[in-house]
Amino acid sequence: MGGDNALTIPLQAISELIHEIEDVDFVAFGKGNEVPSLIDKTPKFKDRFKFVEVQSVILEDEKPSVALRKSRGTSMSAAIELVAKGDAHAVVSAGNTGALMAIAMYQLKLLESIDRPAILAIIPRLDGRACLLDVGANVMCQSRNLLDFAILGTKFAQVIFDKENPTVGLLNIGKEEIKGSDLVKSSHEALQGSNLNYRGYVEANELLTGDIDVIVTDGFSGNIALKAMEGSGKFCLKAIKLAASKSTLAKLGLILFKFFSPKGAISLDPSEYNGGIFLGLNGIVVKSHGSADVRAFKTSLKHAISLARGDLIALIKKEGVQDD
Amino acid sequence: MGGDNALTIPLQAISELIHEIEDVDFVAFGKGNEVPSLIDKTPKFKDRFKFVEVQSVILEDEKPSVALRKSRGTSMSAAIELVAKGDAHAVVSAGNTGALMAIAMYQLKLLESIDRPAILAIIPRLDGRACLLDVGANVMCQSRNLLDFAILGTKFAQVIFDKENPTVGLLNIGKEEIKGSDLVKSSHEALQGSNLNYRGYVEANELLTGDIDVIVTDGFSGNIALKAMEGSGKFCLKAIKLAASKSTLAKLGLILFKFFSPKGAISLDPSEYNGGIFLGLNGIVVKSHGSADVRAFKTSLKHAISLARGDLIALIKKEGVQDD
Repeated sequence: MGGDNALTIPLQAISELIHEIEDVDFVAFGKGNEVPSLIDKTPKFKDRFKFVEVQSVILEDEKPSVALRKSRGTSMSAAIELVAKGDAHAVVSAGNTGALMAIAMYQLKLLESIDRPAILAIIPRLDGRACLLDVGANVMCQSRNLLDFAILGTKFAQVIFDKENPTVGLLNIGKEEIKGSDLVKSSHEALQGSNLNYRGYVEANELLTGDIDVIVTDGFSGNIALKAMEGSGKFCLKAIKLAASKSTLAKLGLILFKFFSPKGAISLDPSEYNGGIFLGLNGIVVKSHGSADVRAFKTSLKHAISLARGDLIALIKKEGVQDD
Repeated sequence: MGGDNALTIPLQAISELIHEIEDVDFVAFGKGNEVPSLIDKTPKFKDRFKFVEVQSVILEDEKPSVALRKSRGTSMSAAIELVAKGDAHAVVSAGNTGALMAIAMYQLKLLESIDRPAILAIIPRLDGRACLLDVGANVMCQSRNLLDFAILGTKFAQVIFDKENPTVGLLNIGKEEIKGSDLVKSSHEALQGSNLNYRGYVEANELLTGDIDVIVTDGFSGNIALKAMEGSGKFCLKAIKLAASKSTLAKLGLILFKFFSPKGAISLDPSEYNGGIFLGLNGIVVKSHGSADVRAFKTSLKHAISLARGDLIALIKKEGVQDD
């Protein structure tokens, strides 16, 4: 029910996925006035989709602590409860991020030995993908948290990127040992002492062009790095369009380029990377952008499905979070 | 003498500028073995250029405190000294950033009532330019520092962007009052209480696409935001080239587009934004990227010239740093 377009986008995304992917059933929670007209009428859809009507929703600007207190009976809380009870494998929401984290922590609980959960973002690479965490769950962190994030990110990369021994880096403002905050220096030491495949400092300009699979940082820096990259990508595309708008031949060139570029080679479309993955919880939670379109929301749903199929939580539990 | 290409790039940049800009004389400092062969032989150049041979240089990986102790007689120290003595209006270096800041602080001194200097970066916009500071001088900051940065950035934007009352924003990970670190919250209050044209929080995705002229943040976050944008821009260009390399018609389209795009409409070329401007010191200091090419180094020289011509330091001194 969250997100800028309430149920319209999620229902459309579910409808498309039901026709593309087998063996996945969906349950949507929301306020129901407009729902019947939105629901796909095909038999395939009817078999695999259920709508649960709720009485209230959590607003986008609600403080997490307030949202948590008032969460009973909301679409967000009811959806998470389904995972907590073991009746669903994962939950996806485009609603209030802070509230989603607070309610998910309350209902699903943190994994043993994890102090703080993290939000992970998948980022593009010329030759694949990488991931960055935390991108916003924890404004303040300790080195112990960053070590946890590195372990969680490693497990994630094993499942989603299918890498046996993913490389880990620590976001910093330089490569030299003397650079960085106290948090960076103490986390660097902690990571060097771990048995992770730790490769040292990564600068923000190397996130998309480097070769490290898992980059860890605190939630403030990670959020800034992620949004700066998104903004810069959008800016480049706008600048190119603006330049093309000033010359018919330039425009023709751009059309030719777009038309003949091999599809799927590399996508700069942010909708292909939509979805913050909550890690450290005893259940799979994916947060979609509030402004996600159908394609972007489908990406978040697909992340949730892949993580459930890869059984990420069991993998973390089995091998333990703290490496030794 | 600093930078990846020692004197070659700066000398070439100076040579080109001397033929493009009147009324500016240049002095270069370096170890002299290879210099004579590099110096432009035209009379115009001879009249306006002087080379000063020094015995030592500061290395790129030297710790700032160590570099400062050993700085006597180095090219960096001698160049800054020329500004300190009033014999030059500005200094530009492609060398060790930390050493440059330490030596500049020692020789030029901080402006009265400034606790910490900042490094400012000019960033592109579809309809102009904006600036971000601090991008790396101070890993840890207090709200008092961010207020100073906002005042320094405002004066900078008045001189360089020719705006009477530049807008100021504070980098944060969300728009809501409850978001952000303690530093962000206390700086927000300090800025609200100032007489600057303060407009509140700015998210990192709005740096290039928003409408705020001066965005302030601590040096850790600012460095990450700046490098993330640089990396993302480079990634987009690489992705486009890679896509074009896979289809002759796409490549042709790209060539058409590039050839017919209006020149100078919007530049995504990082060399046009090269140069970190040190603010808060009693003198003009511009830091070029170590890897700058001739065009990029010229940009840094031009920044130094514009700031000297706009008499930024006198403007800050005259109006006072602390607004009241």
